[in-house]
Amino acid sequence: MSGHLAIVGLGPGDARYLTPEADEALAAAQALYGYGPYLERVPVRADQSHYASDNREERARAAAALAHAAQGARVAIVSGGDPGVFAMAAAICEEIEFGPQIWRALDVTIVPGITAMLAVAARIGAPLGHDFCALSLSDNLKPWELIERRLDAAAGAGFVIALYNPVSRARPWQLGAAIERLRRHLPPSTPVVFGRAVGRQDEQVHVVTLDAVDSANADMATLVIVGSRETRVIERAGRPPLVYTSRAAAEDSA
Amino acid sequence: MSGHLAIVGLGPGDARYLTPEADEALAAAQALYGYGPYLERVPVRADQSHYASDNREERARAAAALAHAAQGARVAIVSGGDPGVFAMAAAICEEIEFGPQIWRALDVTIVPGITAMLAVAARIGAPLGHDFCALSLSDNLKPWELIERRLDAAAGAGFVIALYNPVSRARPWQLGAAIERLRRHLPPSTPVVFGRAVGRQDEQVHVVTLDAVDSANADMATLVIVGSRETRVIERAGRPPLVYTSRAAAEDSA
Repeated sequence: MSGHLAIVGLGPGDARYLTPEADEALAAAQALYGYGPYLERVPVRADQSHYASDNREERARAAAALAHAAQGARVAIVSGGDPGVFAMAAAICEEIEFGPQIWRALDVTIVPGITAMLAVAARIGAPLGHDFCALSLSDNLKPWELIERRLDAAAGAGFVIALYNPVSRARPWQLGAAIERLRRHLPPSTPVVFGRAVGRQDEQVHVVTLDAVDSANADMATLVIVGSRETRVIERAGRPPLVYTSRAAAEDSA
Repeated sequence: MSGHLAIVGLGPGDARYLTPEADEALAAAQALYGYGPYLERVPVRADQSHYASDNREERARAAAALAHAAQGARVAIVSGGDPGVFAMAAAICEEIEFGPQIWRALDVTIVPGITAMLAVAARIGAPLGHDFCALSLSDNLKPWELIERRLDAAAGAGFVIALYNPVSRARPWQLGAAIERLRRHLPPSTPVVFGRAVGRQDEQVHVVTLDAVDSANADMATLVIVGSRETRVIERAGRPPLVYTSRAAAEDSA
């Protein structure tokens, strides 16, 4: 079978984050699939077709791209950030596992990208400088009780926590509930970073303390990083503060 | 103060992972600092000076780069992977916090890169497709008991676990001990991915089950990903298997 599917990470919004490997994969494709706003970042070329779909249509998009590749085409499906982190690569694998047997014969390439937590962390210092976890607050595919158990485990053991999908129009209360939960484990002074639209024109990154978090400041384009007992803030006159997590464990850690 | 320090993520070994932003930061530098093998990846240019140092000299390297930048120079310090993940960005922040006050006035830029776990995951499928954590097995700066507590918490709550710094010449037993610990929590059939030197000529990525892990297969260039109850392996005739973590929670998760 000659079909090929590349699952391509575009990184955060700006083209300065796009790796040469991603560039090549996009250039080699005959057909491009993706969530509309991500696909719009790829310039239209006359000999390539674009198939945009809605955010909530991941499975249908994955299946359509696989079916197209199985016809012998070179297909690329794009993800914001990294395709392997709460994004299209797992959806594609799931379709391959439960789809037609011939999809297993396809040549599938996954092109990594800069995921949101790395981009946000880089803007503010090194909050992910020590042990950390990445947790999606979407309870569409897992029960909220499991998310609470994971928040308890991560904060209780001293991991820094990157919260993906903190809110959406259909999930307005989850970030507030998660922050409440984390307040049981962490000191009020724990630094919390809000990063929105990093790498885009309207980028906003700011740091607050856990007791002062207002979850209304987050939207679908926001990534939240909640520090640990080792996370520190360096104030700088005339410059934004630096937030970093020390590589050495605090005496009272976890 | 006109000095500038860029902390630049080179990504995994191959230049195809180097972002345009990293390229620009390297091109703009007058002086480059870094661990020897990382620095060697940056072509030498007649008008740039290279300062290579040993792996264990992170603090001294950070201080030297800051002092150089504080003289008004444009300095870049390079990291493999992402500088914010178990790498130079936290070391630099630490030096800034406890060093001379004038270092706080420096213009510091952090350029994110593809960190090892994203590169390894992309090679094998999407093992980080759902909630996961990144944990360093180095007990140089934290007690081993804390690492055990974090392994317990992460595996007990159903996180996929990326293990950084699994072994070194001075730390030969930590990976074996960590795997033993994880066997208390996870089924013997749990997929474990070993990724070595991803993006380099001698790249090796393979998957085993938790009961069959031989920690002697890891070295300093290895990243290990231990799956969760949601991590699945898709066998493919004539192609390497795909390993992915389902976005939907298993009924017995955690």
